[in-house]
Amino acid sequence: MNSKRRGKQTVALTRPPSIAGFASVVGKKEGEGPLAATFDQIGADDTFGETSWEKAESAMQRLALSAALEKAGKAASCLDYILAGDLLNQCIGTGFAVRGTDVPFFGLYGACSTMSESLSLAAMLLDGGFGTLTAAVTSSHFCSAERQYRTPLEYGGQRTPTAQWTVTGSGALILTAEGSGPYVTHVTTGKIVDKGIQDPANMGAAMAPAAYDTIRTHLSDTGRKPSFYDLIVTGDLGKLGHEIVLDFFHRDGVDLKNLVDCGVLIYDLEGQDVHCGGSGCGCSAVVLAGHLLQGMLQGRWKHILFCGTGALLSPTSTMQGESIPAICHAVAISTQV
Amino acid sequence: MNSKRRGKQTVALTRPPSIAGFASVVGKKEGEGPLAATFDQIGADDTFGETSWEKAESAMQRLALSAALEKAGKAASCLDYILAGDLLNQCIGTGFAVRGTDVPFFGLYGACSTMSESLSLAAMLLDGGFGTLTAAVTSSHFCSAERQYRTPLEYGGQRTPTAQWTVTGSGALILTAEGSGPYVTHVTTGKIVDKGIQDPANMGAAMAPAAYDTIRTHLSDTGRKPSFYDLIVTGDLGKLGHEIVLDFFHRDGVDLKNLVDCGVLIYDLEGQDVHCGGSGCGCSAVVLAGHLLQGMLQGRWKHILFCGTGALLSPTSTMQGESIPAICHAVAISTQV
Repeated sequence: MNSKRRGKQTVALTRPPSIAGFASVVGKKEGEGPLAATFDQIGADDTFGETSWEKAESAMQRLALSAALEKAGKAASCLDYILAGDLLNQCIGTGFAVRGTDVPFFGLYGACSTMSESLSLAAMLLDGGFGTLTAAVTSSHFCSAERQYRTPLEYGGQRTPTAQWTVTGSGALILTAEGSGPYVTHVTTGKIVDKGIQDPANMGAAMAPAAYDTIRTHLSDTGRKPSFYDLIVTGDLGKLGHEIVLDFFHRDGVDLKNLVDCGVLIYDLEGQDVHCGGSGCGCSAVVLAGHLLQGMLQGRWKHILFCGTGALLSPTSTMQGESIPAICHAVAISTQV
Repeated sequence: MNSKRRGKQTVALTRPPSIAGFASVVGKKEGEGPLAATFDQIGADDTFGETSWEKAESAMQRLALSAALEKAGKAASCLDYILAGDLLNQCIGTGFAVRGTDVPFFGLYGACSTMSESLSLAAMLLDGGFGTLTAAVTSSHFCSAERQYRTPLEYGGQRTPTAQWTVTGSGALILTAEGSGPYVTHVTTGKIVDKGIQDPANMGAAMAPAAYDTIRTHLSDTGRKPSFYDLIVTGDLGKLGHEIVLDFFHRDGVDLKNLVDCGVLIYDLEGQDVHCGGSGCGCSAVVLAGHLLQGMLQGRWKHILFCGTGALLSPTSTMQGESIPAICHAVAISTQV
């Protein structure tokens, strides 16, 4: 029965699902960054033809899902489940995107960890024999996030040096029960870690301990050495959070040379005025559904550990003096099984 | 591979998980209603000893989870997964409740359908062999919901006749891979249904078409007649939504005599000034983790179809003129398999 369990937090999938299609849709700023060539669609003005930023975010999800389905050669009507979420209150980015489909839907909330959470569950549902085709989708939008979490754009608030820039983007992955890979082989589900950081403009520091905890647990649960992976990719810790994770591992005597962060990769940190880097559900989603999976298909990387990171705070919890609970879910992806 | 699939939306679990423990914690008003005797804990003043309504909601989740674990005779440290969510922005009721545990966590957002969503996934993870012990938890709180979705309590806003009253309560279920029941036998995952209702004070009407769609699909997918179930229980349609679902089935020539609604059951609709009845994630959660499962253990009912219903709107989507996307997930529970 529990032949799949590895340690306390990891499962090894016995019939590793295949990532049959993936697509990324981003905004103008992301399209001017170093990963521009890896995105499927780049919006000209971040509205995607809609009349509000929230509706623009839903539009991005619809575009990403249909592009991923097309690349997988599948129709939406064949999907057994969509697993999706976003950062907006009541996850309306997702609710209004999925409304257009006619597919069974599980709504998720994992803050910026949602891409790895949706990928985890989408893979587990296939491995468990509950279907043959699932989709994992998520998004964020700079303009909808700014006015919801921080201040209206028109206010022109000053940003602190530890702040990150919410990525305008949506990534979608299509998983099949059988296929030619890349394959999802392991899922390490995170616990909530909260080390007392209270500054919502320093999410990298809040999330770094969760990333460290999950990566360390994954390596311990699977018996894999860090060097097994060509890349260990965190979600959106940004420059500061990335350095904190490296430091944690240094203290354990481990030099994690293959650790990279989607929030650092997606922008030119010097040239694009994004302070510590990118963040948001869409950040790790579009880097995975572009740069990373394309690199795997091109033979550049064989094994990747994808570690989405999320800060489970709200403006209300911050105003009530609470610290920031964080979580990180890791998903191991390999080109061969 | 797909021996579990029944039709497009239903899976039949091959090793039906057992509900080994359940508990409900409610506020003062719910403790004065007709189901008072079925709740495990009734708060004296809805604060649960906390300094904010949001923290009170987290406290209820912690109380419900620990009571359910105790009744199952299990320690939290044995849990393989917690699946949980709530109505608050960024699901902070859940995030701050789960923070205290040391358990892998999947955060969900299904609005008031979250109890059936969490129960669905908690059962599927066990049936899929990913663990042996999972928890499904959810909550809502009248005071945190009012100020977030509508107006501050102090404003004393007038309520329309179609309005429902958000239940202050949290329900938790503990599922085991093997046990003596009641068992989760089938999961019918809902699609988003939106028939154009735009009034956020008439959620029953918005959600009724989703409930009708999922119940009808479940019966068709499984080949079961409505009379197979002792009860078909919707989440929180309230009096009006309940009548709409009955009417939809009448048009199909079906008299759904065994249809009941948690939002109608939980309050004395005449005496407790709740207009159309109860709502909120906690509504169906505490009726399930009390009245319904106790009745099954007492031999009153053998087969129940539990159909959590959710309205996937936000105040922002309403202000932007959007209609209300709704969803309903059905879970079949039987005392024997």
